[in-house]
Amino acid sequence: MSGPFGRLFNGRPASPDWSGTRTLHYGDGVFRTVLVWQGQIIDRQRQFARLASDAEALHLHWPAPAVAALATEAGSLAVAAGRGALRMTLSRIDGGRGYHAGSDDCDRLLELRPLPDHPTRCWTEGVVLYWSPVLLGIQRQLAGIKHCNRLEQVLASRGWQPDQDEALMCDAEGRVICGTRSNIFVVIDGVLVTPALDRSGVAGQMREHIIDLACTRGPGCEIGTLAPDEIRHASEAFVCNSLIGIWPVRRIGGLELPAPGVLTQQLSALLDHPWAGS
Amino acid sequence: MSGPFGRLFNGRPASPDWSGTRTLHYGDGVFRTVLVWQGQIIDRQRQFARLASDAEALHLHWPAPAVAALATEAGSLAVAAGRGALRMTLSRIDGGRGYHAGSDDCDRLLELRPLPDHPTRCWTEGVVLYWSPVLLGIQRQLAGIKHCNRLEQVLASRGWQPDQDEALMCDAEGRVICGTRSNIFVVIDGVLVTPALDRSGVAGQMREHIIDLACTRGPGCEIGTLAPDEIRHASEAFVCNSLIGIWPVRRIGGLELPAPGVLTQQLSALLDHPWAGS
Repeated sequence: MSGPFGRLFNGRPASPDWSGTRTLHYGDGVFRTVLVWQGQIIDRQRQFARLASDAEALHLHWPAPAVAALATEAGSLAVAAGRGALRMTLSRIDGGRGYHAGSDDCDRLLELRPLPDHPTRCWTEGVVLYWSPVLLGIQRQLAGIKHCNRLEQVLASRGWQPDQDEALMCDAEGRVICGTRSNIFVVIDGVLVTPALDRSGVAGQMREHIIDLACTRGPGCEIGTLAPDEIRHASEAFVCNSLIGIWPVRRIGGLELPAPGVLTQQLSALLDHPWAGS
Repeated sequence: MSGPFGRLFNGRPASPDWSGTRTLHYGDGVFRTVLVWQGQIIDRQRQFARLASDAEALHLHWPAPAVAALATEAGSLAVAAGRGALRMTLSRIDGGRGYHAGSDDCDRLLELRPLPDHPTRCWTEGVVLYWSPVLLGIQRQLAGIKHCNRLEQVLASRGWQPDQDEALMCDAEGRVICGTRSNIFVVIDGVLVTPALDRSGVAGQMREHIIDLACTRGPGCEIGTLAPDEIRHASEAFVCNSLIGIWPVRRIGGLELPAPGVLTQQLSALLDHPWAGS
């Protein structure tokens, strides 16, 4: 765009280098947030594989040289910071006005922030979940993908109680799906269960990792439908994501749970996640 | 963020001035696309009112001085270009890592592009709509809002046929809702009908304007549920948005329609939209 056409950001001319990227306009991209620990990207290979499969689901083209560039840049940031939360975003490039994607190529945005200030008791004594009033829309074509359309999670992260560690979200048809920034596992009648994410929710890398661990070295895991009523019969529960690993759950709404439970301890030991509030 | 923390965009340090804005990360913002014609923003007051009410729906704070700044900047762009498509975006400012909004203040992004190259026949002979295979998720808390989570529209804008002018979208429960970038009106048994947008869809400014016109100076308008089957009984139809005004519809899937129909002509005359492909 030239001549009288162009962009202003807070009143100043915005460089076309960044101001056309389509996450900025439509959330048209995918991302992963990864733990940086001792200068390393934890679960690096799995994270890159998930980013690649999510990119493919949105028809984003992320060829080998661009993967290598992201890996190099992410590695440099990780080494420099030692510890942090690294978000890696692929954003569809500007391809002209409107929803139609004029290109499937990607810009890449890396963001490294300090780790959040979670108290150690989140890992040792467990966390408190509330039921979110925000319901996840049923959208099979986007379910599971960690894309940049995250207003449901933004709305569900508002107005938390002082003792609230996470909010648990149901879909529009009343199924339990996930936390705002975590996936959930519960133990019911001795069976580890986590919700299916074929209609809504985000398939976190840590969720996949834990399902793998549970199936190969632990108690197994059922992926299925979970009703709020069933949660009342849970004997233990935990939430997980790539930053925190596993947090035992000590309360969901009015329901008290032993934390950490037996299976939660077993899986935490198998996972051996580096960060536990230290 | 300082020291080893920060952001890289395509390998280069990204200014914190823009790289934290939350539409870029979560689509956490709202927008309007308006027609600039003869140096003026068409329907300026209504567009600003809609932008304000959508901002409020997402708890975005857009105080009078920021409204005035946007108006001044938009006005300058409009005068300089004469004609164009102006997108006005409010994006929640960076307020720290994660979904939780650390602030409700907004950045503002203005983007002025040349008008799309629609042939005059779109207005005079009508357009061809296809049924989109992408279904809109049911999400009552976000329905109607023109927010920046628009992946459904992006997906629905892929792979169009050469003669396709727009794709018509249904929701996950099978109701007809809207086009990818337009709202739809149909005439059934002499009654003008447009879909309710309380479960999905975008309430375009032009849709509201046409409903007002139809109710105050035209044939009236019913806002309700519309099934694909009912479309088969339509005697005429049109789609609308703020850029194009009204496009008569001459075909929806396999259904041929007279274009422009009698009520479509009446409403087009009442609307007196400046741009009709000239």
